[in-house]
Amino acid sequence: MFAPRAVALVGASGDAAKNTARPQRYLRKHGYKGRIFPVNPSRKEIFSEPCFPTLGDITEPVDHALIMVPDVESVLEDCARRGVPVASIYSDGFADAGPQGAERQARLVGRARALGVRLLGPNSMGVIDIPGRLALTVNAVVEMDALPAGGTSLVSQSGTMLGTLLSRGAARGLGFAKLVSVGNEADLGVGELVELLADDADTRVILLFLETVRDATRLASAARRAHAAGKPVVAYKLGRSAAGEALARSHTGALAGSDRALDAYFRDCGIVRVDMLETLLEIAPLLLDRKPPDLQRPPRIAVVTTTGGGAATVVDRLGLLGIETVSPDGKSPIVDLTMAATPQKYRRVLEQLLDWSGCDAVLAAVGSSAQFHPEFAVEPILGAKQTDKPLAAFFTPHAERSLALLAVRGIAGFRTPEACADAFAAYFAWRAPRERPSPTSAKHEKDAFRLLESLGISVVEQQVARAPDFAHAIPYPVAVKVIGVEHKTEVGGIALDVSEKEFRKHTKGEAVLVQRMVKGLAEAIVGYRVDPVVGPLVLVGAGGTLAELYQDVALALAPVSEAEAMAMIERVRGLSVLRGYRNLPRGDVQALARAVAALSRLCSVATIQEAEINPLIVGAGGVVAVDALVVTKE
Amino acid sequence: MFAPRAVALVGASGDAAKNTARPQRYLRKHGYKGRIFPVNPSRKEIFSEPCFPTLGDITEPVDHALIMVPDVESVLEDCARRGVPVASIYSDGFADAGPQGAERQARLVGRARALGVRLLGPNSMGVIDIPGRLALTVNAVVEMDALPAGGTSLVSQSGTMLGTLLSRGAARGLGFAKLVSVGNEADLGVGELVELLADDADTRVILLFLETVRDATRLASAARRAHAAGKPVVAYKLGRSAAGEALARSHTGALAGSDRALDAYFRDCGIVRVDMLETLLEIAPLLLDRKPPDLQRPPRIAVVTTTGGGAATVVDRLGLLGIETVSPDGKSPIVDLTMAATPQKYRRVLEQLLDWSGCDAVLAAVGSSAQFHPEFAVEPILGAKQTDKPLAAFFTPHAERSLALLAVRGIAGFRTPEACADAFAAYFAWRAPRERPSPTSAKHEKDAFRLLESLGISVVEQQVARAPDFAHAIPYPVAVKVIGVEHKTEVGGIALDVSEKEFRKHTKGEAVLVQRMVKGLAEAIVGYRVDPVVGPLVLVGAGGTLAELYQDVALALAPVSEAEAMAMIERVRGLSVLRGYRNLPRGDVQALARAVAALSRLCSVATIQEAEINPLIVGAGGVVAVDALVVTKE
Repeated sequence: MFAPRAVALVGASGDAAKNTARPQRYLRKHGYKGRIFPVNPSRKEIFSEPCFPTLGDITEPVDHALIMVPDVESVLEDCARRGVPVASIYSDGFADAGPQGAERQARLVGRARALGVRLLGPNSMGVIDIPGRLALTVNAVVEMDALPAGGTSLVSQSGTMLGTLLSRGAARGLGFAKLVSVGNEADLGVGELVELLADDADTRVILLFLETVRDATRLASAARRAHAAGKPVVAYKLGRSAAGEALARSHTGALAGSDRALDAYFRDCGIVRVDMLETLLEIAPLLLDRKPPDLQRPPRIAVVTTTGGGAATVVDRLGLLGIETVSPDGKSPIVDLTMAATPQKYRRVLEQLLDWSGCDAVLAAVGSSAQFHPEFAVEPILGAKQTDKPLAAFFTPHAERSLALLAVRGIAGFRTPEACADAFAAYFAWRAPRERPSPTSAKHEKDAFRLLESLGISVVEQQVARAPDFAHAIPYPVAVKVIGVEHKTEVGGIALDVSEKEFRKHTKGEAVLVQRMVKGLAEAIVGYRVDPVVGPLVLVGAGGTLAELYQDVALALAPVSEAEAMAMIERVRGLSVLRGYRNLPRGDVQALARAVAALSRLCSVATIQEAEINPLIVGAGGVVAVDALVVTKE
Repeated sequence: MFAPRAVALVGASGDAAKNTARPQRYLRKHGYKGRIFPVNPSRKEIFSEPCFPTLGDITEPVDHALIMVPDVESVLEDCARRGVPVASIYSDGFADAGPQGAERQARLVGRARALGVRLLGPNSMGVIDIPGRLALTVNAVVEMDALPAGGTSLVSQSGTMLGTLLSRGAARGLGFAKLVSVGNEADLGVGELVELLADDADTRVILLFLETVRDATRLASAARRAHAAGKPVVAYKLGRSAAGEALARSHTGALAGSDRALDAYFRDCGIVRVDMLETLLEIAPLLLDRKPPDLQRPPRIAVVTTTGGGAATVVDRLGLLGIETVSPDGKSPIVDLTMAATPQKYRRVLEQLLDWSGCDAVLAAVGSSAQFHPEFAVEPILGAKQTDKPLAAFFTPHAERSLALLAVRGIAGFRTPEACADAFAAYFAWRAPRERPSPTSAKHEKDAFRLLESLGISVVEQQVARAPDFAHAIPYPVAVKVIGVEHKTEVGGIALDVSEKEFRKHTKGEAVLVQRMVKGLAEAIVGYRVDPVVGPLVLVGAGGTLAELYQDVALALAPVSEAEAMAMIERVRGLSVLRGYRNLPRGDVQALARAVAALSRLCSVATIQEAEINPLIVGAGGVVAVDALVVTKE
């Protein structure tokens, strides 16, 4: 795919205004060293190069065919006959075009597998390999005179974004190794490409532009392979607003949303997730040759500046993202060098901070000198003796040349305070791929409460009381619940704190569930579900309606250990009431963590789709489940 | 200040490396047409222009002096003697340098007032008037060859940021009229400058870069004047993270935070607030010649594109900010023209959408053609027949020339999906300055509950029960509260649902407060306080600990009408439980709004610093205050 000795351009056009004319021009423009065979039955020559009526008419070996004609199927047969191992398909009308297109795609892939031809696309904009001088793409961004080379590679589900990132990178010296537009991922998918890039000598950081995750398992293992090879993987993922909610159905699902599930998934795989588009481009040098920082406390950055106002924009934003800014004097949040500081002094201060154990990263916020006098503040950054600690710069003015100087030295440079803070937040949230504990096997119980008991989770003392006398042995006061109804609160199906005198007022129908009243310090919700995209997930949040309104839950791929469950609980703001907030009595957070870890073991039971404890009452010593639900796969 | 016939540069240097040498060079470079008088006792000539030992030695009239020497005070005397009406002070060492500096500043201002000289600064980087060809500044950004002219003016509390915005604007054709660095605002402040700009013929949009608000009243009235003149005012304000919290002390204060108070203030004054720095620059054309949209429903944008992936980045972000994306077919969230669409078709679609009543704005998301083929998608945007409805563009690649083409035509262009969405969110949140209702006077009551009753807010039936027998006439069950303690929940000072049998277990000390138990559908918190920066504020939020954890409150400057209070309640997520969320019974939101409006009338009582009802129980018919607090000014 990346180093073809010869390429065939099937459907190449001689009309320079057409997209299909581009690949030939671009390959020549950027100095492709292999042979190029345009294929078009109505031309003898295209741009002065001999043209072939069909792929079958090419007598020499072809390593990679780019298919730009509607009849992809017959070209595929030609590929097989001529022994072409890889075909990239620009043509659309497959899974991108509704159910019929999806069927067509399935047939195409089936045939390609039978024939032994690998496919990129359909609906792919092609492949660019900058060190390999291969611009096999219809993306107009390659009109640019020189493609910027670098150690970053990109896999994109959007063909346009491949151009966007290359274009923006070129403007400021951030270069690329390989860029691949995967289109519909009918055969070669994001995961397999990440594997290829993990083994690619030119690639040092891997960027992903994602609209969805089609094969979570493959991508997860590819991310682990990249991690093992010391290559950070970064994702920008769309679908954070409406899309996530649309998928959500059940109660836990509504809280989780598919985007939050993906967030948990990325964290679990050691994939760094960025919030802003520009961060995807700018973060690469920050991660290059570094390992996940894995701090067990809030991160601290020392910000050096001669421009207070400029530094304040980034300090403010870092603060919003929970990153502290510190200085050795312990007072000011920034290290403010006066305008009179010399370049020597500037560099010395940077080096002192890089050596200082009180900070986890150093950021220089540079004002107008970045634009007109790089010798003053930019050169000290370039010259500072690097350590393992990240050194980065934010330039307040328009300063593309200075950004390019940083890029050459592999130092992260940021155009906006927001992307700078986003990048640092993503860097500090970066974790090594998690080794999930091997789940002790759990057994399937249809009854939700029995299921919990089988996992070792305490269940409230309860009994079914039946008509006509509704006798039971639960001590008063009790809770009385109708049986077999979800969302009981909303339908008035729960009576709490019922005394013996009032008990019969609350019995209805054939039977009711009578539970001992338990009061704790807080209510929690603990959930488990098999997400259609990322697989088994466990969730913990504060109980009650408000927690749902505020979407205040933490998710992780199941199973989790108790320690990991504790870390999840830490991320739930509403559960801070259990951790001694405002001197409220502390709850048994450890028992809550045990319950979360226990429920997460359901991933060993293939028949369970979803389970939820809501609420789980958290007391000063222990937790008790008072309502639960289990959904099995049909 | 802006159109001086002659300027004096006091402390001008002949050493080109020094900051103090810059203004003379910059004035000449950018074609200042008036006379320039360098003042420096140790030079006869600077850059071939005659130099004066002191300001007093200049015999001709001087309209504006720039002071760059430490002994500001004696230069001020010279200014007065020579009849110089305005002095800009670059020198620092005043309020920027601790309490002693602040005293020095106070003396300086007192003397300037006595002498009739107006001051800009101290610690100001000066003034730039681009149409007037006046670059009276030490800011190195003015090294650029040509200053970009336009209808936007900037008032900045940071001198660097003046350069940052000018530099970034110049790179993409966004020009300025006047730029003023206000420094310490000892005399001329942001408010007065906004007034000047409201009356300035060259200024059409006013941008503010703020670190604080020193005179909220003056700025509020200036913003109203600008609004009346049809000139939108936009603010980027620092201090959203730690700074806000540091100021917060009391309970309501902790929820409000000073940044949230400023947010309410900006909204009240009709000042558009942006979240991201680049938005401050990019938003100007979106607001130019427009009025606040004031929609009573979620805003809708039609996004036109030929690049699905590029459009998705901005659609996703708009969605996160509560802005819907719509298309006339009612199905797709974008209007996706195929790559084959002609420029004529592109333009026609834009014009149809600008005429379509189903959307409130039109956004074109343009891919690589923005960089290499502006004739395809950029020219249709430039050519489309404009209506009152905003038309804007987001370019996915690096495309500064195309951005400049938009700027020339006064069409908003965005570099990042995030700033684009931020700008639209700010635009749609824009309201005309609010006319506050004139408060019916309230009376001061020391007792919190009496105060509430005097405002017409229902208070729970209650009585103080005293030792030894603690007799009272409140029907059981009751709530028993210790007297004279704040944050009673935390100290165990409240017993709820106490039966007659158990009453005496809960009586302590000399007396307790006995209240009838009221149960409602939800608890709310309603607060009032006089903020040190923006003045009287009213606050409403969901009651209980969680609401505080989630900072889920709405603020407005007091007083508010009932209708305004209803709009505040709409903004509180946690109060959606009262509005029929998940079929829960509806609460009397109207009564809650009446209580908010009533408490806001406290702004007519000068002696009250703070008041809070927490909780206010909201039932199906009416609200009842069960705990309250009032703090008077000492």
